[in-house]
Amino acid sequence: MTAFDYDLFVIGGGSGGVRSGRLAAALGKKVAIAEEFRYGGTCVIRGCVPKKLYVYASQFSEHFEDAAGFGWSVGESRFDWAKLVAAKEQEIARLEGLYRKGLANAGAEILDTRAELVGPNAVKLLASGKTVTAERIVVAVGGHPSPHDALPGNELCITSNEAFDLAALPEAILIAGGGYIAVEFANIFHGLGVNTTLIYRGKEILSRFDQDMRRGLHAAMEEKGIRILCEDIIQAVSANSDGRRVATTMKHGDIVVDQVMLALGRVPNTKDLGLEAAGVKTDERGAIIVDAFSRTSTPGIYAIGDVTDRVQLTPVAIHEAMCFIETEYRNNPTSPDHDLIATAVFSQPEIGTVGISEEEAARKFEEIEVYRAEFRPMKATLSGRKEKTIMKLIVNAADRKVVGVHILGHDAGEMAQLLGISLKAGCTKDDFDRTMAVHPTAAEELVTMYRPSYRVRGGETIA
Amino acid sequence: MTAFDYDLFVIGGGSGGVRSGRLAAALGKKVAIAEEFRYGGTCVIRGCVPKKLYVYASQFSEHFEDAAGFGWSVGESRFDWAKLVAAKEQEIARLEGLYRKGLANAGAEILDTRAELVGPNAVKLLASGKTVTAERIVVAVGGHPSPHDALPGNELCITSNEAFDLAALPEAILIAGGGYIAVEFANIFHGLGVNTTLIYRGKEILSRFDQDMRRGLHAAMEEKGIRILCEDIIQAVSANSDGRRVATTMKHGDIVVDQVMLALGRVPNTKDLGLEAAGVKTDERGAIIVDAFSRTSTPGIYAIGDVTDRVQLTPVAIHEAMCFIETEYRNNPTSPDHDLIATAVFSQPEIGTVGISEEEAARKFEEIEVYRAEFRPMKATLSGRKEKTIMKLIVNAADRKVVGVHILGHDAGEMAQLLGISLKAGCTKDDFDRTMAVHPTAAEELVTMYRPSYRVRGGETIA
Repeated sequence: MTAFDYDLFVIGGGSGGVRSGRLAAALGKKVAIAEEFRYGGTCVIRGCVPKKLYVYASQFSEHFEDAAGFGWSVGESRFDWAKLVAAKEQEIARLEGLYRKGLANAGAEILDTRAELVGPNAVKLLASGKTVTAERIVVAVGGHPSPHDALPGNELCITSNEAFDLAALPEAILIAGGGYIAVEFANIFHGLGVNTTLIYRGKEILSRFDQDMRRGLHAAMEEKGIRILCEDIIQAVSANSDGRRVATTMKHGDIVVDQVMLALGRVPNTKDLGLEAAGVKTDERGAIIVDAFSRTSTPGIYAIGDVTDRVQLTPVAIHEAMCFIETEYRNNPTSPDHDLIATAVFSQPEIGTVGISEEEAARKFEEIEVYRAEFRPMKATLSGRKEKTIMKLIVNAADRKVVGVHILGHDAGEMAQLLGISLKAGCTKDDFDRTMAVHPTAAEELVTMYRPSYRVRGGETIA
Repeated sequence: MTAFDYDLFVIGGGSGGVRSGRLAAALGKKVAIAEEFRYGGTCVIRGCVPKKLYVYASQFSEHFEDAAGFGWSVGESRFDWAKLVAAKEQEIARLEGLYRKGLANAGAEILDTRAELVGPNAVKLLASGKTVTAERIVVAVGGHPSPHDALPGNELCITSNEAFDLAALPEAILIAGGGYIAVEFANIFHGLGVNTTLIYRGKEILSRFDQDMRRGLHAAMEEKGIRILCEDIIQAVSANSDGRRVATTMKHGDIVVDQVMLALGRVPNTKDLGLEAAGVKTDERGAIIVDAFSRTSTPGIYAIGDVTDRVQLTPVAIHEAMCFIETEYRNNPTSPDHDLIATAVFSQPEIGTVGISEEEAARKFEEIEVYRAEFRPMKATLSGRKEKTIMKLIVNAADRKVVGVHILGHDAGEMAQLLGISLKAGCTKDDFDRTMAVHPTAAEELVTMYRPSYRVRGGETIA
């Protein structure tokens, strides 16, 4: 018997916390989990799930337009923002219920309270003021959008948190940022009929992605009418007499919109968490420092998910939770594997990617082969949409291994998932070549590029 | 110098013929290619391409319905069949032009005539009556839908050939057959607003597919309002006084429709081709018999694509053409590889599949693990559509190799393409397990099914 109230106390009811709590409880451990807001975390409540639902919603305007080329005439359409928000809310409530049910069925105690560390094995529950003890504590409190405190008028701005539940759909929005959240929301708002501008300090949106993806998406977004201002920033935001927002930019003057959304990165939720009291060290960004087994600087305290700022993705948090369980409760030390994580940007068109960019591969390997295709998707031939699909394979010439795949186009996220299997298994370009095409698909291009478009040797592009 | 008029004469301007002609010409060979109808073959003219364009067209009615759940109200829509046919025609003409251009650029002589064999190295061009000689002849004349001569009134029916260009969209159609062509057209016509009935003699549609796919698609089609009559056949077709068709069925009485479409298999186009004169042997179905290198019984005459009745798929015909070129003109004997061909049924929902079915795997291997997921696609949560996605992995327990993957759902064709790489490369279930999920996608289910749903050992299902 343990001398503690619990074998495991989990702080945070998001993807990582819930998975670790549920699995530990299912193994017969005495588990409690505390969440101050709603179970489900960023992913379910204000991230992946509502985002993708809004992406679907925003795609219908293109469907209506595309239909004409295929013989359809469609009556006028109207969009009701309040209906979408309500439908989203209902679905999230359903999912939150499933999270709670999973925890309860496994036998975990579900607490609706903020919890803070008060010592290495002690947690204070703010709702009751009670302090409880636990042999092990998992901190899985996630992160939140940076409020950009240095920006005058930042309190007049929204972040992705608020964007889902705005009282009304803005007529015009200005989104600051060039990361995947900024880009996804720009596409969502544009698709829903909002006059949308993106402003980003970098030279090109989506830093660290393959350059072809960055330029390709930029071009596609502009083509559909999203204004993108690169190498510029907002210097101040103020409110107009009619309640609209005025964003003063460095290069493009004042921009008047209904909402300014800041998508300038996310910061770990480590403030007032009692980390110092418990001796848990953080880095300069406030992220909890962990070792290869998600152990913090305090024995018995672990941290997983976004709060550790390793890779901020739901499946990664879940994976880290499962590794924690294997290591601590199944006698099978398992270190999270952060290599070759496939991922998607749910922009329109989507980006799906796994492995490294051409630029990174060119630095890393003596010689690479680049296979590149750019074509109009089949549907666009009749819809008339001026959209291009771009697909790239990056191959290490020395061993023929495919080290990067990058796709801009429909279903790129689904494709990235399955290409993830091939790259993780170390498939070579020859494996791709041996694969028969499935016709007519977009993905068939990935197995029918028999000759490199070009090679890069020692950093130089050669024919 | 050769003593013949041509190094290579290709009969048939479809996918296989055009690829072999183009590649040989590009290698400097003197090549002629003859096509009696239109370049592009079944795929471009009356198969894959127009089929998929019509699939896109037929999906819009679902888009309009789905929009409501996401906050959209859509005015009444109308569909104009003639507009779709014209748009399709324009696209096909464009593609045919690309085929001709590819051949011409490579230096092949393009003949618009039917060509028949008159001897081992001799071909008669029917347009001019001229006979020419060639060192090698590739027969790539494809196949055509079975006219079902034994059916009284079959001349009153259409096949997929005519379906694309009907003068008017029928109000009601009866489609005979349970293969992928029958199923795809049933979904197309239903989506375009046609009252659609499918009649098939078998117990379940899509024989040889995994049983879960067969039942799942059947249920999905019925759910959306397609009537499916299994274990029944049409015994006769007659014309009504008002010009409609009356199909007399064995079990379901008379069915009155505007069109009866026969999709009862395809037969090789070997009639009146001069095969006997050239000594080329065929099998009992009329297919040209070939060896592992696409060589017929007559030296110098080769056959590729559907006319050989190996695997009737465009990419396979192209692959056979490329193997012919490697073998005959590049001194690199290459036998076509027909193993593990991924394929798709462009039904709605789609089926994507690679490898063998559960039933076949259970017979072939001592023990298999079956991983099976059935879930509502994310979009359906708000659209309210009662559609299920089904995903299955079949794993040989002995070596952990994934031997079959079967998907019913959106983008299943794209997924099958990429799963084809993994299976061809011999990936194991452990490779799938090691792959991080991409969230939220449908495909992530394929890498997060950690425990088998059940096992089959010695033909018995065990827990």
